[in-house]
Amino acid sequence: MLEQIQKENDIKYIDKSEYDALAEEIRQFLIEKISVTGGHLGSNLGAVELTMALHIALNLPEDKIIWDVGHQSYTHKLLTGRRDGFESLRKFHGMSGFPKRKESPCDCFDTGHSSTSISAGLGMVKARDLKGESNTIISVIGDGSLTGGMAYEALNNASKLETNFIIVLNDNNMSISENVGGMSSYLNNIRTADSYLDLKQGIYNALRSTAKGDSVIKTIRRVKSGVKQLVIPGMLFEDMGITYLGPVNGHDVNAMVKVIGEARRVKGAVMVHVMTEKGKGYAPAERHPARFHGAEPFDIETGLPTNPRNTPNYTDIFSTVMCKLGQRNENVVAITAAMPDGTGLKRFHNMYPDRFFDVGIAEEHAVTFAAGLAAGGMRPVVAIYSSFLQRAYDQILHDVCIQGLPVVFAIDRAGLVGSDGETHQGIFDLSYLSSIPGIQIMAPKNKWELSDMLKFAVEFDGPCAIRYPRGEAYAGLREFREPIEYGKSEWIYEEKEIALLAVGSMVKTAEAVRDILKKAGHSCSLVNARFVKPLDEAMVEKAAAGHDLLVTMEENVASGGFGERVQSFLNDKALAAEELSIAIPDAYVEHGSVELLKKELLMDADSVAARIMEKLKKN
Amino acid sequence: MLEQIQKENDIKYIDKSEYDALAEEIRQFLIEKISVTGGHLGSNLGAVELTMALHIALNLPEDKIIWDVGHQSYTHKLLTGRRDGFESLRKFHGMSGFPKRKESPCDCFDTGHSSTSISAGLGMVKARDLKGESNTIISVIGDGSLTGGMAYEALNNASKLETNFIIVLNDNNMSISENVGGMSSYLNNIRTADSYLDLKQGIYNALRSTAKGDSVIKTIRRVKSGVKQLVIPGMLFEDMGITYLGPVNGHDVNAMVKVIGEARRVKGAVMVHVMTEKGKGYAPAERHPARFHGAEPFDIETGLPTNPRNTPNYTDIFSTVMCKLGQRNENVVAITAAMPDGTGLKRFHNMYPDRFFDVGIAEEHAVTFAAGLAAGGMRPVVAIYSSFLQRAYDQILHDVCIQGLPVVFAIDRAGLVGSDGETHQGIFDLSYLSSIPGIQIMAPKNKWELSDMLKFAVEFDGPCAIRYPRGEAYAGLREFREPIEYGKSEWIYEEKEIALLAVGSMVKTAEAVRDILKKAGHSCSLVNARFVKPLDEAMVEKAAAGHDLLVTMEENVASGGFGERVQSFLNDKALAAEELSIAIPDAYVEHGSVELLKKELLMDADSVAARIMEKLKKN
Repeated sequence: MLEQIQKENDIKYIDKSEYDALAEEIRQFLIEKISVTGGHLGSNLGAVELTMALHIALNLPEDKIIWDVGHQSYTHKLLTGRRDGFESLRKFHGMSGFPKRKESPCDCFDTGHSSTSISAGLGMVKARDLKGESNTIISVIGDGSLTGGMAYEALNNASKLETNFIIVLNDNNMSISENVGGMSSYLNNIRTADSYLDLKQGIYNALRSTAKGDSVIKTIRRVKSGVKQLVIPGMLFEDMGITYLGPVNGHDVNAMVKVIGEARRVKGAVMVHVMTEKGKGYAPAERHPARFHGAEPFDIETGLPTNPRNTPNYTDIFSTVMCKLGQRNENVVAITAAMPDGTGLKRFHNMYPDRFFDVGIAEEHAVTFAAGLAAGGMRPVVAIYSSFLQRAYDQILHDVCIQGLPVVFAIDRAGLVGSDGETHQGIFDLSYLSSIPGIQIMAPKNKWELSDMLKFAVEFDGPCAIRYPRGEAYAGLREFREPIEYGKSEWIYEEKEIALLAVGSMVKTAEAVRDILKKAGHSCSLVNARFVKPLDEAMVEKAAAGHDLLVTMEENVASGGFGERVQSFLNDKALAAEELSIAIPDAYVEHGSVELLKKELLMDADSVAARIMEKLKKN
Repeated sequence: MLEQIQKENDIKYIDKSEYDALAEEIRQFLIEKISVTGGHLGSNLGAVELTMALHIALNLPEDKIIWDVGHQSYTHKLLTGRRDGFESLRKFHGMSGFPKRKESPCDCFDTGHSSTSISAGLGMVKARDLKGESNTIISVIGDGSLTGGMAYEALNNASKLETNFIIVLNDNNMSISENVGGMSSYLNNIRTADSYLDLKQGIYNALRSTAKGDSVIKTIRRVKSGVKQLVIPGMLFEDMGITYLGPVNGHDVNAMVKVIGEARRVKGAVMVHVMTEKGKGYAPAERHPARFHGAEPFDIETGLPTNPRNTPNYTDIFSTVMCKLGQRNENVVAITAAMPDGTGLKRFHNMYPDRFFDVGIAEEHAVTFAAGLAAGGMRPVVAIYSSFLQRAYDQILHDVCIQGLPVVFAIDRAGLVGSDGETHQGIFDLSYLSSIPGIQIMAPKNKWELSDMLKFAVEFDGPCAIRYPRGEAYAGLREFREPIEYGKSEWIYEEKEIALLAVGSMVKTAEAVRDILKKAGHSCSLVNARFVKPLDEAMVEKAAAGHDLLVTMEENVASGGFGERVQSFLNDKALAAEELSIAIPDAYVEHGSVELLKKELLMDADSVAARIMEKLKKN
């Protein structure tokens, strides 16, 4: 059947009786493709029927679907003529794993981070109304994304709307891990509200059966909010001014098409509450939703990774060290924003449940909550991926650093992250953090140094950020393990001519660069910066004095990064040193393997060595 | 009576019968002092009795009060031994207008931006519980701040709490201007819910009066949420797992002391809904709440400013130009985050009500909402103060700029803002914006250029930021009005020896610096940068070629700012130019007049000229 669906709206030619079979076919297609390329499996399997229903009910691309986060958009891509794209899913120059306006006119808004879809959808609704158009606009948001404050800000604003705007709440009772908080409990109550609905019916009947009751019912009919309180689940949304429809079975296409039809008739914001199961139809994903959230290539039969990892990654190291720190210091507490697995804090959670906090997808709260914990005498470690921490820039600056509170930011996925692409690259943190007074910023060269830096940071009386990359923890340079000293970098090799000043992940690259340069007959020092802030000025002075060329190397955009700091210092001190800055150029970086991306950006060892030799030639 | 209150807890010696008289005395004190120094009047007059009640009910500093935003903390300062501080309120080295931990042990958490108090309070609660302590922790948040998503993220997390945490909702039905959105309507419903409460009582009585009703009531008693639905206002909060108490008259000290006592007995998060009147007790402030939010010195009799402004400020210019742009282009829409007055958008609102959006204190939503509008074909202008826009760093980067959407950011209060201090200085925007690929950043030298840049920006096909300072719009250099050309700076004076490359507000300073240098016998060029991003590389090359010294001047921190960009470019091109960077050093800047702060930071004309001459001497 999938063969018949060559482009958007083709699904409308499929007979109602075939929907289940089509859903099954789509599931098999997704499982098969993702098992080879890797990708977001669980969320996509959960949204197959929902996507079908939307495509049956709407006319694309005139009508608009905004996918929150966007990792659940695979079926949408499949139904809009991008079947072949799955061969190159998340590969360099291949199809993105997220909605992209440049990929299809049916992708009306790019997403990647959580909780943005209602805001964007509301903007498109207002634009539609101002233009006098009447197309349907639907934001699809998960219950996990609903823990993000932005979603609430948007709901608060959608409430006054007098034209149609549909919010589909795709409720699988999960964030990436289990969902948290009051809203999640509330939704759970609706889900299991049979007895409660019975109760309301009981009240109604009781009232009807008495003369006095009759007049009460009349009063109720007059007082709108009273009626709602009695008969409608989802009252919380109604209280905010959002019409609530549901709950609906999110795996029943016909039921959803019907309710979307009803929702379109509402003159205002309407929430359609759809209940889905993450990983639906593939047993391993149903059992291990976190593991199959973003999956590496796997064996379909067993669900096990095709290429199991043998070496620890930085997340594993962080995980282990946190448990040790928790044991050593009872004031150490840990915070994650819906990523207990992804950040490696699950083990800390198991060992110290009282000192572990999963706040949901709520990075802003996570950081200010940590500030409160620190003000109360704790030593909070906030583990958030680099690109998501962007959400909390103001909280770091305003709530943590003005007061100099000892909060440790463990920034995973810093640098290039690969297949998730533009929205997820962690290439801005050195810049946005460096602008903040009073913060210390570190990056480890290898796995032992991550451990040492964490120990240093939880003892340090002030805010510290440690950024480390996705993937395998570097196990080289083990012999270089001088204790971390505040603001001091580490001279790994001291020679002359060229000094490589490398940050974190780039130390490994710099080692390889040095080998190439040495083979070409150059003399070359290697400095592991360790601290990006404060800058080790003595190191820079020494490097400038003893070398013809300084080369800064960082996996971060150039603007506001380490290289600019070094250049600025050289300039302020009027040190006449040649400098070459290796950093990510001023552009978003698309998806692809990290290795490939580094080559494209001329940041791999060969390219860097070539750039250095070219610079030397010029001088 | 105020004389008797020398330190925290002294208020407890005041007899209950004297509370009203004390409140009156405090009000007179505040009006008198603020009429001289200026400051936040309305919010403080509204919170007099609430603050008294908190101080009577609690033991400071063991118990903790976290003031959201913090501008309502004047009575708190008065009751904690800081009466003399009001002489120097908001003056350099004087008392801050916000809570400051370094000012008093009774200030337990610094605030300034909105919606942070519940997150911080929850952190302190968790720290308290982990330490096995039992003090009371109260976050006081306004209904305006409750439109910020962070507050909701925190409520969502507070819901599962099993120990006491009090959230006082100080509800004056106002943000700085009128409050907006569904939550505000909801609170309004509670406020006016008498008939609705009657109704619920009616249902109860009807049920009691029948046999069938009896059994229903028993069922209700078993099903907790059912009972709550019937008998408790504030169900929205109860639905989220927060116990709700109220509404209470926020000008009745005894009633509030009583309800706080009740609230302390709740094992969990409890919201006390207190209804106050902004500006209470001073007629001009009651009538014009927005004007008396942050007041300049005023005449108590008339409420009029002591030193009325005769010259337009940048906000006035923005206001006028926006109305023109709205007329010229029907796709131009305007967005504010609860600041229709402060940003100057009120006139646009009056002229084009359908194209104006006040989203409440919700900067993140504001930006992504604008992205949605732009994706829908509109030309949104988002007017947000520099320091508040920090909240939306990720939304600018992720929702606007990745897609290259034509959103215009009108960034008021960029640079030093003066008396609001650390939390409000707009000195980071050039840094955090410069790190973002695809954005254009401009700053006008004078009032005509702000107008020209706005016109340029709404025509430009991509994201543009225009930053301009608080205060009087510069009316000099009128004769220099070449059209804005993409990425091009403006040579105002072309000489040699020294080239001043100044950004926005610093062009005026640079003029004065140039006069001093000329008098001292130097030759001096002056360039108005206009664009911070993209950098006008041709200009920098020309400046480097024709001068002995380049001086960059910007009202922004050095890290990631204009100066570093220029230095980096000079370095990349191996241009052997001396460079001096005038920028704000790497530290938070406290409150005080802008003029004074500039002197302190060595950024006034005299200091800059002296620094230049010293640099010349060294070379």
